Amino acid sequence: MGNYFGGIEAGGTKFVCAVGSGPDEIIAEARFQTTTPMETIRKVVTFFKSYMEDLGISAIGIGSFGPLDLQPSSTTYGSITKTTKPGWSNTDIAGELKKALGLPVAIDTDVNAAAFGERCWGAAKGLSDFIYLTIGTGVGGGAMSNGKLVHGLVHPEMGHIPLPHDLSLDPFPGVCPFHNDCFEGLASGPAVNRRWDAPGEKLAPDHPAWALEAHYIAYALTNYICTLSPQRIILGGGVMEQDHLFPVIRQLVQKQLNGYIQAAAILDEIDAYIVPPALGKQAGVLGAIGLAQALLQGD
Amino acid sequence: MGNYFGGIEAGGTKFVCAVGSGPDEIIAEARFQTTTPMETIRKVVTFFKSYMEDLGISAIGIGSFGPLDLQPSSTTYGSITKTTKPGWSNTDIAGELKKALGLPVAIDTDVNAAAFGERCWGAAKGLSDFIYLTIGTGVGGGAMSNGKLVHGLVHPEMGHIPLPHDLSLDPFPGVCPFHNDCFEGLASGPAVNRRWDAPGEKLAPDHPAWALEAHYIAYALTNYICTLSPQRIILGGGVMEQDHLFPVIRQLVQKQLNGYIQAAAILDEIDAYIVPPALGKQAGVLGAIGLAQALLQGD
Repeated sequence: MGNYFGGIEAGGTKFVCAVGSGPDEIIAEARFQTTTPMETIRKVVTFFKSYMEDLGISAIGIGSFGPLDLQPSSTTYGSITKTTKPGWSNTDIAGELKKALGLPVAIDTDVNAAAFGERCWGAAKGLSDFIYLTIGTGVGGGAMSNGKLVHGLVHPEMGHIPLPHDLSLDPFPGVCPFHNDCFEGLASGPAVNRRWDAPGEKLAPDHPAWALEAHYIAYALTNYICTLSPQRIILGGGVMEQDHLFPVIRQLVQKQLNGYIQAAAILDEIDAYIVPPALGKQAGVLGAIGLAQALLQGD
Repeated sequence: MGNYFGGIEAGGTKFVCAVGSGPDEIIAEARFQTTTPMETIRKVVTFFKSYMEDLGISAIGIGSFGPLDLQPSSTTYGSITKTTKPGWSNTDIAGELKKALGLPVAIDTDVNAAAFGERCWGAAKGLSDFIYLTIGTGVGGGAMSNGKLVHGLVHPEMGHIPLPHDLSLDPFPGVCPFHNDCFEGLASGPAVNRRWDAPGEKLAPDHPAWALEAHYIAYALTNYICTLSPQRIILGGGVMEQDHLFPVIRQLVQKQLNGYIQAAAILDEIDAYIVPPALGKQAGVLGAIGLAQALLQGD
């Protein structure tokens, strides 16, 4: 009793729930379509309740789509705020689960949860400062600085940084509804799809789409490296399943930084500096379990 | 006895040294040209020794030009590493002062020290997450996340982020010897000077130089906001003495973010979000005193 935790990866399309203590011990897992908040949360509650009686669950962790209110002093702490997902604005997801399950609940962004999962059991083990970036339908980033997940004013929105965009090289205007050609607007899965009129999965590794994709990703990483000075960068998400991108991105980051950051990790060991997630698609739900554990440990 | 600290703002041109406990109590201050490491450090030691006997000094703080080795586990911790400043590469500035004065020594980058000064007594009082940016001969940034100064792999080099650069609008190639048209390359004091063939001080507030300057600064801030989610951004340095830039930068940051970050601080209270330093040019040396205090308090 008491060694199990509930983890929820709350996405705009589906919720992944798991009971366990880490990657080597997942007792149960379930997926639900994201429908209305009431229906979705009810399914989550039913799932965890069925395991609480037999196994005991000590706490729940949530890695959620956002934007989220993560200001501990706020009256709406733990809520999804104003979201484009219909029906979900102002949903007190952490509060509802806490009330229904009677358990302590930790909540963070989906990407911060995935970052935390990689920190506990994956590619960022033992690091105090790193970035987890997911490049797929959208582009999101979670970051840890001095051993703590970065929140600040709201939480990072790393996908929306402005980047150099040479229109003579790439006249595509970008797909971000807010910023057109921010990083997400130029390099997300939908951007690739719209620019080349075909989904990324259908484009061969030697298609010019990928050289351009690596170019934008490298610019973004160069930005993050200069701003946050991470000890490692983990690149996940659907687009990064194109693993031929990694060596090209690494080389371009070195070229763009041009020796300015005097660190062996970048100059000599970049293969271990820009890496795929070790937990793959499980990073989110495992990270949520990690957040639940950390909550009880007072981290 | 024991309430006084020594602060050193170690710059590439001059060293500013002060003895005191904070902005309301500076007992003595001195400035030395930065010549050779041996001569400069000797002057610093002589200055502090003369006050140690009468007043007592509990610890020394240094905010130094860099790059610095700030990895606590490193054998060269506290050293200036490979610098373009002749004669100063591999200078163990913290170690030399510790040995000569027999006092605990704290060291951080010049911009992190200035950030810390603003946190202790200035425009970032009480904040856990903020950025201090200086835009002058170079562009440098210090950052705090979760109440701790950001170091990570090395330390931030915020001046060197790549930015959108529309060559049809601004054909100037940039002055950064490493990256040409990174933020520093496009917007530092020397960039303004070279682009317009006149130093910024000579350009009237309605000169087109300033609209362009605000444009690049706003892009950089939008980047930092998306990556670090600061609760406030402090803009100092020689270029920001052009205080007509502030309202233009604030407006452009709002325009570039386009309502995406749902935070009152940005949407409604941006005058208090992007601000000048409260400590002005004293931020660096006061921050060094703050670092010395924090060292003894175990922060």
